[in-house]
Amino acid sequence: MRYDIAIVGSGPAGISAAVNAKIRNKNIIFFGNDILSAKLIKAPLINNYIGLYNSTGSELKEKFKKHLDSMKINITKERINAVYAMGDYFALMVNDITYEASSVIIASGMEYQKPIKGEEKFLGRGVGYCATCDAPLYKGKRVAIIGGNEEAIEDANYVNELAGKLYYIPVNKRAKGLKAGIEIVNSNPVEVIGEGYVTGLILKDMRIDVDAVFILKDSLSPAELVPGLIMEDGHILVNRKMETNIKGLFAAGDCTGKPYQYMKSMGEGQVAALNAVSYLDKI
Amino acid sequence: MRYDIAIVGSGPAGISAAVNAKIRNKNIIFFGNDILSAKLIKAPLINNYIGLYNSTGSELKEKFKKHLDSMKINITKERINAVYAMGDYFALMVNDITYEASSVIIASGMEYQKPIKGEEKFLGRGVGYCATCDAPLYKGKRVAIIGGNEEAIEDANYVNELAGKLYYIPVNKRAKGLKAGIEIVNSNPVEVIGEGYVTGLILKDMRIDVDAVFILKDSLSPAELVPGLIMEDGHILVNRKMETNIKGLFAAGDCTGKPYQYMKSMGEGQVAALNAVSYLDKI
Repeated sequence: MRYDIAIVGSGPAGISAAVNAKIRNKNIIFFGNDILSAKLIKAPLINNYIGLYNSTGSELKEKFKKHLDSMKINITKERINAVYAMGDYFALMVNDITYEASSVIIASGMEYQKPIKGEEKFLGRGVGYCATCDAPLYKGKRVAIIGGNEEAIEDANYVNELAGKLYYIPVNKRAKGLKAGIEIVNSNPVEVIGEGYVTGLILKDMRIDVDAVFILKDSLSPAELVPGLIMEDGHILVNRKMETNIKGLFAAGDCTGKPYQYMKSMGEGQVAALNAVSYLDKI
Repeated sequence: MRYDIAIVGSGPAGISAAVNAKIRNKNIIFFGNDILSAKLIKAPLINNYIGLYNSTGSELKEKFKKHLDSMKINITKERINAVYAMGDYFALMVNDITYEASSVIIASGMEYQKPIKGEEKFLGRGVGYCATCDAPLYKGKRVAIIGGNEEAIEDANYVNELAGKLYYIPVNKRAKGLKAGIEIVNSNPVEVIGEGYVTGLILKDMRIDVDAVFILKDSLSPAELVPGLIMEDGHILVNRKMETNIKGLFAAGDCTGKPYQYMKSMGEGQVAALNAVSYLDKI
């Protein structure tokens, strides 16, 4: 099935986008998680969310959740690996599942790991973010996994069944549960190297020869998530309609620039949703 | 005294600007009225103000008012007639009082009467919005007052003491209390005419020869309020920082463009305030 609007991120911008798209009777899919926003729930007293003076982040989160529940807006708890513009629709990849939507709103915030040197250069040419999707390409080959998210151990055990040699770099300090045969490398990754294609990974204390590097992290930068997206000073370039350089793809919230503030994000999520609705009405 | 930031308008954009400027310890003056926003209090159920699902406009207004009260933010109940850029500060005119501020945020909404033909062309050359300020210039002359606001009758009686001949056009249908000698003209104004300077006023059924036309209305369009302000399609032209073409003058809310929505306005008011703070830090 194809959704009208896919919303990536469940912080203030994503919530506001989802509410406004739903009010306009659009068929939406809303990707995020139960806590809505890791940044929000950690916030101490907030005194500039107008109408709810002096609330804690977690109090606001409860009010936002209640709003979503009242409107029967569900959150799809998946982590999007990539968003591809396919012409008249977008493909949103979650490991081996593909979601389709006619328009997309990126509201993924600013909390993501900075890419390491060479990561973006070799993306799709040996560097990948979804080990389980791409592992079959490296059957019998040498693979490194930089483990930074919850599923990293599980993914590594799966890749190990296919790869000839698997190195595991536990940047999140967790290596418990890894199957025998996987070589744990306790050093910080510095640079992915290669010539056209990945040939190795330089770490702080050593260098390993590999054919592929999977970098498993909680959230990707917008440029990693959406190939071809134009950025400016580390943020997604948008106009006042929250349009990006890609037709049908909008952005809202912290990922579009400072100030990093809740109401700014809410307002942008609303503008993005209403302009996505106009876009859908035209196509 | 000179304020850091003057905020013109007490709707959602102005409220959010005031709250954020106050949090940043700026010395603000906040022009508006007790009902905050005529548009807001008339709104039936609102379901896209995130965190306060299914509130009426007047319920939201009460919550906003409480927020302002909690932060000891006062509203100055004055109607600004003009905002002049004076170089390193702004002069905000209210009849014969002048307020000074280093920066200004225009959040005056979209509820204003459309100008009549010739009104903008002859503004300052016979057309004025403050009868009591400019009446002394027309001692013994022929003056027309287009009465559209609460104070129109009172202003007309004052002007009558100075003018040679006073015509009163009650577009708000009220003429009770006008002093003897004032000629009431029951017709709709169509065009202000002149050559370099006002010479007459064309009405639907007649034409009168006058030297000045005072147009008294509840709110002015931004272009009438701020000479030199660049508009686009009937809205104030702003960038993503909510900067206008005039340095130190920002705008937020409905007056900057569609969608006319509360959260969009709140977000813009916040962005305008924080960028006004940056501007003040630099000068």
